[in-house]
Amino acid sequence: MAAASQIGLAGLAVMGQNLALNIAEKGFPISVYNRTSTKVDETIDRAKSEGDLPLFGHYTPRDFVLSIERPRSIIILVKAGSPVDQTIQSLSSFMEPGDTIIDGGNEWYQNTERRLSDAHSNGLLYLGMGVSGGEDGARFGPSLMPGGDYAAYENVEKILKKVAAQVDDGPCVTYIGEGGSGNFVKMVHNGIEYGDMQLISEAYDVLKNVGGLSNDELAGIFDEWNRSELESFLVEITADIFKVKDDLAEGGLVDKILDKTGMKGTGKWTVQQAAELSVAAPTIAASLDCRYLSGLKDERENAAKILEAAGMKDEVHAVRAGVDKKRLIDDVRQALYASKICSYAQGMNLLRAKSAEKGWDLNLGELARIWKGGCIIRAVFLDRIKQAYQRNPNLASLVVDPEFAKEMVQRQAAWRRVVGLAVSAGISTPGMCASLAYFDTYRRARLPANLVQAQRDYFGAHTYERVDRPGAYHTEWSKLARKSNPDVAAALH
Amino acid sequence: MAAASQIGLAGLAVMGQNLALNIAEKGFPISVYNRTSTKVDETIDRAKSEGDLPLFGHYTPRDFVLSIERPRSIIILVKAGSPVDQTIQSLSSFMEPGDTIIDGGNEWYQNTERRLSDAHSNGLLYLGMGVSGGEDGARFGPSLMPGGDYAAYENVEKILKKVAAQVDDGPCVTYIGEGGSGNFVKMVHNGIEYGDMQLISEAYDVLKNVGGLSNDELAGIFDEWNRSELESFLVEITADIFKVKDDLAEGGLVDKILDKTGMKGTGKWTVQQAAELSVAAPTIAASLDCRYLSGLKDERENAAKILEAAGMKDEVHAVRAGVDKKRLIDDVRQALYASKICSYAQGMNLLRAKSAEKGWDLNLGELARIWKGGCIIRAVFLDRIKQAYQRNPNLASLVVDPEFAKEMVQRQAAWRRVVGLAVSAGISTPGMCASLAYFDTYRRARLPANLVQAQRDYFGAHTYERVDRPGAYHTEWSKLARKSNPDVAAALH
Repeated sequence: MAAASQIGLAGLAVMGQNLALNIAEKGFPISVYNRTSTKVDETIDRAKSEGDLPLFGHYTPRDFVLSIERPRSIIILVKAGSPVDQTIQSLSSFMEPGDTIIDGGNEWYQNTERRLSDAHSNGLLYLGMGVSGGEDGARFGPSLMPGGDYAAYENVEKILKKVAAQVDDGPCVTYIGEGGSGNFVKMVHNGIEYGDMQLISEAYDVLKNVGGLSNDELAGIFDEWNRSELESFLVEITADIFKVKDDLAEGGLVDKILDKTGMKGTGKWTVQQAAELSVAAPTIAASLDCRYLSGLKDERENAAKILEAAGMKDEVHAVRAGVDKKRLIDDVRQALYASKICSYAQGMNLLRAKSAEKGWDLNLGELARIWKGGCIIRAVFLDRIKQAYQRNPNLASLVVDPEFAKEMVQRQAAWRRVVGLAVSAGISTPGMCASLAYFDTYRRARLPANLVQAQRDYFGAHTYERVDRPGAYHTEWSKLARKSNPDVAAALH
Repeated sequence: MAAASQIGLAGLAVMGQNLALNIAEKGFPISVYNRTSTKVDETIDRAKSEGDLPLFGHYTPRDFVLSIERPRSIIILVKAGSPVDQTIQSLSSFMEPGDTIIDGGNEWYQNTERRLSDAHSNGLLYLGMGVSGGEDGARFGPSLMPGGDYAAYENVEKILKKVAAQVDDGPCVTYIGEGGSGNFVKMVHNGIEYGDMQLISEAYDVLKNVGGLSNDELAGIFDEWNRSELESFLVEITADIFKVKDDLAEGGLVDKILDKTGMKGTGKWTVQQAAELSVAAPTIAASLDCRYLSGLKDERENAAKILEAAGMKDEVHAVRAGVDKKRLIDDVRQALYASKICSYAQGMNLLRAKSAEKGWDLNLGELARIWKGGCIIRAVFLDRIKQAYQRNPNLASLVVDPEFAKEMVQRQAAWRRVVGLAVSAGISTPGMCASLAYFDTYRRARLPANLVQAQRDYFGAHTYERVDRPGAYHTEWSKLARKSNPDVAAALH
């Protein structure tokens, strides 16, 4: 063996293999281990064929751990939950005080906090590190979100900075904060990713079904959008998707794909945490709901039949007839962008709320920066989010940043046209609707919440505040209403 | 003392006092207890003044427990959480095997399941009983949702049936199911209540701000609606609220109420549970979000200013000018009703999902029945929900019941007009939008979820299914897209 490894990685599914190869390729000798030894052999073979990279396979936890330079840093990339606990247990007995465990999975942040405190009681350090970018990101440059022990971060900072995606203002990694903050930030990243994907699918739905666009036209439009304010990985791959022909039957492949979307839990957690922290995140929630409803394929087919039998008419054709295609495309682009800003505003505010609760001191601008490359939501406009938080770290919401506010105002007419058209055509745009309702609720100085509070005071004596003087008030509504002019009820007739 | 008490009640805040007086008034001698003795005296005084009712106050846990006939049933009405644990601890040492504790608070169902198992280890029985109807309901007839030990229910069935609200088809109480089912059902009831209140506030908002209606006109309309398909407690009290004049200043009191809505946690739990159980409940979630956003009054006022400075124009006046008031009122009634059906469909499906998970075997039709009286969401249309589930206990969703399907179809045009109008006027109707998007998503046989799944396969190799043949597929999208005609991107130009 040439030199002792500078780092180790356990768990050699595709993500683990790719991240290990990435590290080795950047010049850091790495030891790898997997419970199933064939995966170790596979990784060694890949390391040879992909450039004779300094990667060393081990077949027992002991050999693996002892092959690494002290203080050791070991990345674990196994399924979240108990496999992580099992892997920690099998490795940690050979580790020594000052060594570090780095969990790179999509773990629930509280599990990380429990393991962090367990690690400390053994003298070990711990990081929970979000890794985004899928398999390609892991191999060629992911976005990395390490949180936990700062000393552990310092030990691997040099490696992570080389391994991460590189953008104009540096590598896509930063120390996120203490505790489970790295996992939490990755979780919200995924929630935002749910929102982006949903909004793009709604743009597709409206363009295809209201605009009557073909896959070729859609490919062209998304390519064009990828040279606009919407430039992003997800828009880019959407253009690609529309270009792929089906090799089993006639037509485009996208049309043959079953309309059921899978999921793995981080979107659900994001929605639950938003509710827990009193943060409205309706666009992300709508995305999650659509994944749930997409799964009810049989129920949906049945509902379509029953409602048709009850007299439901398809309004799409009537609406389509009156549509100016060119204007629709332009409107949808603006609606997508405005909806996206609202979705990011929700995600960012969720992060800020959690940061305040946990004392993580998250730097929102820096988070936007490390998402500019490597990860699934990478996009040009993240640089503008970074700048917004640099201008004002205490920005209440992205939509009130002067730059974004201007953009929202410029796009709102188009946005309202698209949502209105979709509403009348019966083409649901739950994410765009949720974003617009969010915007129109957040930007209104006066909401009808006064009535809700009056109702609560009526039936539950919950009291209310007044707009014109301080204090809490309770009214005997029922009694006073009876005393009022009984003819009021007839006023309109 | 005349006779031994047939039941006991501990916790004499207003709800507890009222429920105890209700029980006594129905002819069941009752012992009451409170840690603060003045509350005991207060309750005794009320029992005297409200008809010399058979209510007996006690000042120590021991005297209180021993004053009740065996097997004893003791209702606890204290704040949810640790006060319940403390009360159980102070009482249970004097209770004997076969005795029952009944927690009547808005408790998290898992707390009830923990206490239920603790009770069993002491030979005691346990019920977690949802009580709805506010203070008036408790005094004159609430809706009761007892879950837990069936034997415990049998002990108090006679009392509960007399104490509950009475409707045409019986008392508003039924044995809900095992474990924490009573609390869970009450939680979802509250989530639905959030939805109802939000939807009514949106109807108010549109009628006031788009329709330009006065409080007197609104009172008349809600009175009229309370004689329509919308007949319900919440619509009735809304009419009352618009009638009440401010006694501190000119005008209607509702206009002086600060637009911030409070909350107590059951709505949040409902939203979190829906996410947990893969059930879409967007209308209820929108209601919760609006409560959260209503609380950000300062931020909203600030956002209104910043967006105005960025060029935002108020579109309400332009839209209002073109509105036919009479038609708007009729449309809003229909939009409210259709939105409400979707909200109840969500709540019912959440109950069914939890029932399946826990094996509670909930009878959804019977739940709709016991909500017909006593509780905050009581409404004539709950009888129609009861009938829908009687026709088909396995109904996939209320909106596909043939009767409701017909109603949805009849109202959809009006519903789309109202939402479209609100969207163009910038008057947010998050609940109505969420209901409509839910309806339009659930009733579509084909959704754009195929694109989302293609994206997931592109960046994460998550595979996809096809519409035309079985199996799981993975495509090398990027490679195939490059092979396709590169000029496709220019097709539209």
